[in-house]
Amino acid sequence: MVKFFEKAPYAPVEYAYDVEEILYKGKSKFQEILVIRNEYFGKMLILDDVVQLTERDEFFYHEMLTHVVMHALQHPKKIIVIGGGDGGVVREVLKHKTVEKVFFVEIDEEVINISRRFFPAVSSGVEDPRVEIKIMDGAEFITKRKTSDIDAIIIDSTDIIGFARSLFTDEFFVSVKKCLTDEGMFVTHTESIHFHKDMVIEIQEMLKKVFPVVDLYTAPIATYPGNWWAFAVASKKLSPRETRRKLEISTKYYDEEIHRQAFLTGRLYERLMQRKLEW
Amino acid sequence: MVKFFEKAPYAPVEYAYDVEEILYKGKSKFQEILVIRNEYFGKMLILDDVVQLTERDEFFYHEMLTHVVMHALQHPKKIIVIGGGDGGVVREVLKHKTVEKVFFVEIDEEVINISRRFFPAVSSGVEDPRVEIKIMDGAEFITKRKTSDIDAIIIDSTDIIGFARSLFTDEFFVSVKKCLTDEGMFVTHTESIHFHKDMVIEIQEMLKKVFPVVDLYTAPIATYPGNWWAFAVASKKLSPRETRRKLEISTKYYDEEIHRQAFLTGRLYERLMQRKLEW
Repeated sequence: MVKFFEKAPYAPVEYAYDVEEILYKGKSKFQEILVIRNEYFGKMLILDDVVQLTERDEFFYHEMLTHVVMHALQHPKKIIVIGGGDGGVVREVLKHKTVEKVFFVEIDEEVINISRRFFPAVSSGVEDPRVEIKIMDGAEFITKRKTSDIDAIIIDSTDIIGFARSLFTDEFFVSVKKCLTDEGMFVTHTESIHFHKDMVIEIQEMLKKVFPVVDLYTAPIATYPGNWWAFAVASKKLSPRETRRKLEISTKYYDEEIHRQAFLTGRLYERLMQRKLEW
Repeated sequence: MVKFFEKAPYAPVEYAYDVEEILYKGKSKFQEILVIRNEYFGKMLILDDVVQLTERDEFFYHEMLTHVVMHALQHPKKIIVIGGGDGGVVREVLKHKTVEKVFFVEIDEEVINISRRFFPAVSSGVEDPRVEIKIMDGAEFITKRKTSDIDAIIIDSTDIIGFARSLFTDEFFVSVKKCLTDEGMFVTHTESIHFHKDMVIEIQEMLKKVFPVVDLYTAPIATYPGNWWAFAVASKKLSPRETRRKLEISTKYYDEEIHRQAFLTGRLYERLMQRKLEW
């Protein structure tokens, strides 16, 4: 059997997947793009040798990155999605009827094109009239924006290396804050608590210099090494732990109970931030 | 770099670890035993090509398998540990001052010996005078026992195939119930919710035929494929969700908050058992 060996950054275990078929192999201006088919996971999108999504389990990541913030907001109308060229987050955002406008800012147009071709169920929202696609650097888009009218900014970047680094700087977080309404929220993945604990802590600390409310929640994701995947969330005043709207959309994993349970417990969060977790 | 490729049963992704050094390679009556050193995880115990523990992260599994039940009980005195030849569960059980007696029932003496040699920090409790080692099949030990005086029965088996199968039968669960006091509890790992959902459900259903109270909790374990590791717990009347004693022992991960959070939310549990989770 042909195998694909993942090269995830900072991961002390390497994942290998059986490859039934190579559906696409190419190179964009930014990265290598690979689409394979695996018997169990279905089609898989791989960028620079790192698995971004599988048909079978993509909803864990996309739902948890999107719906925690969307349900912590009372009436989210204007959203910015940065990265996530596959369209998974945009699809989830558009499930909310309150949403009037989504700026979908992706640096690599090829990822959008390949996803529309191979993952139509994931990129299904990309052509929605509420979506405005911007092919550009997300940091640049946020920094140049002058109005504070965005309800949610969602970062769905690749691993926090290379060109994704610009989305994890003090300057960027300051610009994010400026774009948000007073009730607005920011959310980004921050790798795994198992393998990338220092990075998780660092991003929490950076956000705390900018935002009064900063928190951390997790989701179990089988296809991202470390698996105990962390999401950093920040706001000007509202706690993201509270749901402010009923669940009125269809989801496979997320619900209000999982929303509450996903946040780190008080003591675990404290121990994490005090660097007292010994692993 | 030399690599070890894990052959975990039912796992649709294969884990590969860099091997710095092979410390031991042998074969017992029951299985192949391998001890390697990995730069990140430290020493690793591998049975029949499946990673059982790593020095770095073994506490997640051992604490969560042991302390949920131990804190749901008011005064656990007599404990049976089946499997877990490495001694990790015995070590955790012995942290509780209420414990007077531990029957440590392991089918493969070689695992105990190898663990004492290479993982002294894990097998540290094995020589404690409260521990009685029984080298025999755990199912036989439980079936032959005639008294109902055990406060907790903890199964730390290898994956649910081969000789471990005898610990997951209706007959065995009936015998387990007979051994327990009225307040007693039973706990076993039941693989991962990601990759082994049908097995998780099946064991819940089997336990429900025998026990009035059956529940499910999870822990994030980076080195077991599927990672979202499930534990089935059963009792004659007490709910395992409640802690009945204060945390008075030293732990790296487990605490009362994590105890509560570890259980599946009501709706998720319901959807799981109704086979409505689509993954």
